[in-house]
Amino acid sequence: MTNGLIHRRDLLKAGSIGLIAGSATPVMAREPWMTGPGQPMSGSGESSRYVSLAREQVGAHAFGPGAGSSSSPLQHLNGTITPSRLHFERHHSGIPDIDPDKHRLTVHGAVRQPLRFSYADLLRYPQETHLYFLECSGNSYRNTLAEPQNQTAGELNGLVSGSEWTGIPLHYLLDEAGVTADAEWIVAEGADAAGLTRSVPLSRALDNVLVALYQNGEPLQPAQGFPVRLFVPGCEGNISVKWLQTIKVQAKPGYTRDETSKYTDLLQDGQAEMFTLQMEVKSVITSPSGRMRLPEHGVYDVSGIAWSGAGTIAKVEVSADGGKNWVTAALQSDARPLALTRFRIPWHWQGQSAVLLSRAFDDRGNIQPTREAALARYSSAVIYHYNGYQSWRVGKSGEVSNVYV
Amino acid sequence: MTNGLIHRRDLLKAGSIGLIAGSATPVMAREPWMTGPGQPMSGSGESSRYVSLAREQVGAHAFGPGAGSSSSPLQHLNGTITPSRLHFERHHSGIPDIDPDKHRLTVHGAVRQPLRFSYADLLRYPQETHLYFLECSGNSYRNTLAEPQNQTAGELNGLVSGSEWTGIPLHYLLDEAGVTADAEWIVAEGADAAGLTRSVPLSRALDNVLVALYQNGEPLQPAQGFPVRLFVPGCEGNISVKWLQTIKVQAKPGYTRDETSKYTDLLQDGQAEMFTLQMEVKSVITSPSGRMRLPEHGVYDVSGIAWSGAGTIAKVEVSADGGKNWVTAALQSDARPLALTRFRIPWHWQGQSAVLLSRAFDDRGNIQPTREAALARYSSAVIYHYNGYQSWRVGKSGEVSNVYV
Repeated sequence: MTNGLIHRRDLLKAGSIGLIAGSATPVMAREPWMTGPGQPMSGSGESSRYVSLAREQVGAHAFGPGAGSSSSPLQHLNGTITPSRLHFERHHSGIPDIDPDKHRLTVHGAVRQPLRFSYADLLRYPQETHLYFLECSGNSYRNTLAEPQNQTAGELNGLVSGSEWTGIPLHYLLDEAGVTADAEWIVAEGADAAGLTRSVPLSRALDNVLVALYQNGEPLQPAQGFPVRLFVPGCEGNISVKWLQTIKVQAKPGYTRDETSKYTDLLQDGQAEMFTLQMEVKSVITSPSGRMRLPEHGVYDVSGIAWSGAGTIAKVEVSADGGKNWVTAALQSDARPLALTRFRIPWHWQGQSAVLLSRAFDDRGNIQPTREAALARYSSAVIYHYNGYQSWRVGKSGEVSNVYV
Repeated sequence: MTNGLIHRRDLLKAGSIGLIAGSATPVMAREPWMTGPGQPMSGSGESSRYVSLAREQVGAHAFGPGAGSSSSPLQHLNGTITPSRLHFERHHSGIPDIDPDKHRLTVHGAVRQPLRFSYADLLRYPQETHLYFLECSGNSYRNTLAEPQNQTAGELNGLVSGSEWTGIPLHYLLDEAGVTADAEWIVAEGADAAGLTRSVPLSRALDNVLVALYQNGEPLQPAQGFPVRLFVPGCEGNISVKWLQTIKVQAKPGYTRDETSKYTDLLQDGQAEMFTLQMEVKSVITSPSGRMRLPEHGVYDVSGIAWSGAGTIAKVEVSADGGKNWVTAALQSDARPLALTRFRIPWHWQGQSAVLLSRAFDDRGNIQPTREAALARYSSAVIYHYNGYQSWRVGKSGEVSNVYV
């Protein structure tokens, strides 16, 4: 009835993958790398030459020079952290090469006292450290297209990544500046040539927003905003303005080019939703996934990531029959607020055709919708904020491909 | 009385670092990187050319070819994750260049059914994901020397790192093999030329030990054991055998060369402690730290890492006067079992001379000892398992150096 999804307590019954005939002490091979000293220590480690790891869909958009994105190779990763060098990118005018000694962050507008900080100044402030996901509002937009694209999990859904972010709670800086009584919004601008500028409600800015300086333990990489970026947990990626140079406190939003020409979402009734900001509850199976091929019949671990911009993942269900029957998956990592959570469940594939998919539930009662329901939220012109199912068909010869259910 | 250590609620009184004279809208500079498109997207990100990040103390030991270590540059990091490329190394015969398609993991000995796994086999097993520290038993050994070495935090204490580790709970594989009634130990051997081999009590092996395949989201790097390593949380690093090729289940420990010629700890009374395994409660201030220089008077955030192989960090105290008075620091990250925890506390430096140090407390009642008490545990010949204080003197002109208190 589950088309092969099994509970761990039944895993042993499926038989071991590693059985050796006989029970005598097995002969150990003596491979060349055991016969002499290996490579010496070094200042910086690298991946094995047998492992190929790179961002996917690396490409310029037609919008202008330096505009484009690249995706995390989700199908090659496990756990919840994305190495910083593989974190997705989305730039509006390329990656600026900023000298941190010359960069300044200015806090001004509806404040009693404007402030200006050098990078060295910022490093002296109290910081917080949290695991958070970051998702581009355009992530998975290819699944809004009429026909399913035969692509990998990363190509389709890799505009989401997970990191440990460390930075100054923005409220420390706003407290020092002293926001005035009429202040309701902040407007954050980046120091790239696009001057990307977005508005954040002050209530949110005073809550959990960071002025981020470190990602995964090290100073931000330039592609992630070095020397300093805004980080707005749970919200569409471009709100977390990279190369942050000004925060202006205002009574009204900025209604900037970046939040009117884009990142405003047309509804079915012709009304537009501005400042959507929050990303929805969502999950993606990363293995098995698009363009993989199962080499033989047997037990495989179905593994994926889930997240919600509203809170904490409470449960993930997996189906192997296109959504008719669902089984609760195990959570492989701790579920943390506004962070990637890894789920997994064993699946016994005996050559049957199958459609694998997942749906996530968060602790605020949100449930990941079907593709149909997700598409019904906005006008058909909208490609942002897609959080419907990602379904993978497994064919008789083990090939895996994107499919709509 | 605290020599400048202050509570956050008093931070505002110390005055802002970023005050601008006057309250008019400040003029924003137009730096060169704002005037044209920056670098395009790429398959793999890099650090800023203004950031110099590399492992420290990269050096061969005299023991033989490929033997040596390198340290994480703790003073340049923040948060709790160490990027994999900067994770400390300790090798006994260099880094083997292993073809994952040829590597095998064999489980044999006191089992009903020996098992042998290819890398592809292992990837099909259920995995778990946890944040854990890893510390070499020789970490901080320079602080056991008679004179304090004038080195950085990383050079002195960087044989500890933090990562998200993902792997197969070892008990799954041992359950499949079926350990026999007399089994009490496992003996794990690596596929490097040194064939490093260590023994782990079966009770611990069945508890939280992993057969690790991923670190910080990506497949292990060769310097960290690619394709597969044992990971024994909370224990001295070399027990987490890299390039794992055999697990033999036995009634007795292996008493291998690696755990008798080294990693056996002579006590003051002439007795030797074998299988010390567990690392103790410990903390290190990473900023300000050795060889830094405070550029001016003002408020600085004192920041560091704490960990315990026995459990979870419960509290960290910081002193600015060499240990006479202590103030409880804030925990900057969530405290998690057997993981690095980041602590911090603001400190107002007005030119006074000071000695900064920290002491960690875990949830099992363990308290980080003074240097004197830590040294008294073992014979003076022992350089392993040092967990005493790391103290930093701040001189009148702001220079920071290692000191014993």
